[in-house]
Amino acid sequence: MQPLHVIKIGGNSIDNPQELDVFLSDLAGIPGHKILVHGGGKLATSLAEQLHIPQTLIEGRRVTDAATLDIAVMVYSGLINKRIVAALQARGCNALGVCGADAGLIRSIRRANAAIDFGFVGDVADDGVDTQRMRMLLDAGITPVLSAITHDGSGSLLNTNADTLAASVAVAMAVQADVTLRYCFEKNGVLLDLDDNDTALPTLDPETYARLKQQGLVSKGMIPKLDNAFDAARRGVKHVIIGHAAALHHLSGNDSGTLIVHHETT
Amino acid sequence: MQPLHVIKIGGNSIDNPQELDVFLSDLAGIPGHKILVHGGGKLATSLAEQLHIPQTLIEGRRVTDAATLDIAVMVYSGLINKRIVAALQARGCNALGVCGADAGLIRSIRRANAAIDFGFVGDVADDGVDTQRMRMLLDAGITPVLSAITHDGSGSLLNTNADTLAASVAVAMAVQADVTLRYCFEKNGVLLDLDDNDTALPTLDPETYARLKQQGLVSKGMIPKLDNAFDAARRGVKHVIIGHAAALHHLSGNDSGTLIVHHETT
Repeated sequence: MQPLHVIKIGGNSIDNPQELDVFLSDLAGIPGHKILVHGGGKLATSLAEQLHIPQTLIEGRRVTDAATLDIAVMVYSGLINKRIVAALQARGCNALGVCGADAGLIRSIRRANAAIDFGFVGDVADDGVDTQRMRMLLDAGITPVLSAITHDGSGSLLNTNADTLAASVAVAMAVQADVTLRYCFEKNGVLLDLDDNDTALPTLDPETYARLKQQGLVSKGMIPKLDNAFDAARRGVKHVIIGHAAALHHLSGNDSGTLIVHHETT
Repeated sequence: MQPLHVIKIGGNSIDNPQELDVFLSDLAGIPGHKILVHGGGKLATSLAEQLHIPQTLIEGRRVTDAATLDIAVMVYSGLINKRIVAALQARGCNALGVCGADAGLIRSIRRANAAIDFGFVGDVADDGVDTQRMRMLLDAGITPVLSAITHDGSGSLLNTNADTLAASVAVAMAVQADVTLRYCFEKNGVLLDLDDNDTALPTLDPETYARLKQQGLVSKGMIPKLDNAFDAARRGVKHVIIGHAAALHHLSGNDSGTLIVHHETT
């Protein structure tokens, strides 16, 4: 099967223009099929502040009311997405910026929660990734740049977690491609000592992950990312790597970042 | 040659949700290849006001400084574009929202003007429309929804006049398709009496247009639109029609709106 890189770039890297430039140059240099999934960064929060739209957090998660959804769509699918696309085009990478509504690529289901209403938030539907359409774009030499906004197919846009979105795309595409899913962020990988970027684990298996969690050695923000990573590895994604955005040029195997392994390392 | 509809929807129709809904339902119902080009509406201006970004007008044209460009990208390529795409998807139309940077579809050149600097404003380059890429999308059953933001190919996004963009796309595609270009706005066509929507001319030829302009019977805002329309008709676009957004379902010939004719009517 053909190799496919699904690469997620996180908010902190997006907020740093120099870092983003290096990352995008590295991305443009990767040959073959690739999909970039990007989150938001601080721009959406600062825009909400400037517009005096109060942000509600429940259990650390932002509630997406109608005004907040509009901001997310403007910032993620508008400004950030198109800036990335223009930068990739200038680097000879034929990027096409999309959200999940575009070409019906990603259909999601509005999150139902009896206790808490998170608003316009959607989780990718089980058959929500249109892999045929995605493949058509890739085969045409296009690099989809996917912002973390999806749609329900009935006209509503929905805010979607970018880490989960990247995992969903990687898992769906794994049926027809050798997928490497790489989460790029501002650390060198999964760190043993959260304050020391030189302590990145070369690999992480489920047993070690469980032990680290028990010992409180995994930061709260990393848990959903790692859960997504293990889920992807279990569901057919060939390589899942968590690493620094500046280390994207080290793509082969686990020479950089933390390789997620879902069974005994051979 | 295959028919292709290039349809431009104007700002006032975008500002009216009910009117936009009807328009999008009509658009979804048009069989075959179609491209929608959309402008901005009042949302960008109101967002600039809320963010206290002063808007400079020179000779009635807005100067696009960096902050204003960001707003245009957020509103046009983000919010409005994705709302339209989600609405079309819900109507069974496989819409894909793009700006000119996406897939390198539209390359423009930053406007050089010795006297006035309009900022980040671009005019479509002579060979700026990637007709092959556009055709690939159309052949895949996709309806491109194009916001009036383009790129210079070197990483800069540029604000571009939506009427001119629609004409440029129509002219470029006319080499390989029977193109109908339709400008949809809030009037029934080119009006003889600007205050009476029932006075739309069924056709308009260059001689009549020149006479109406001399008599001051063409509103200032209509002149660039009509210049674009005549230019498109002269350069191979088969039908150019200016009409009401609510009359999109009358697509055949000139039974609605004003048909632009660039030579003697036969």
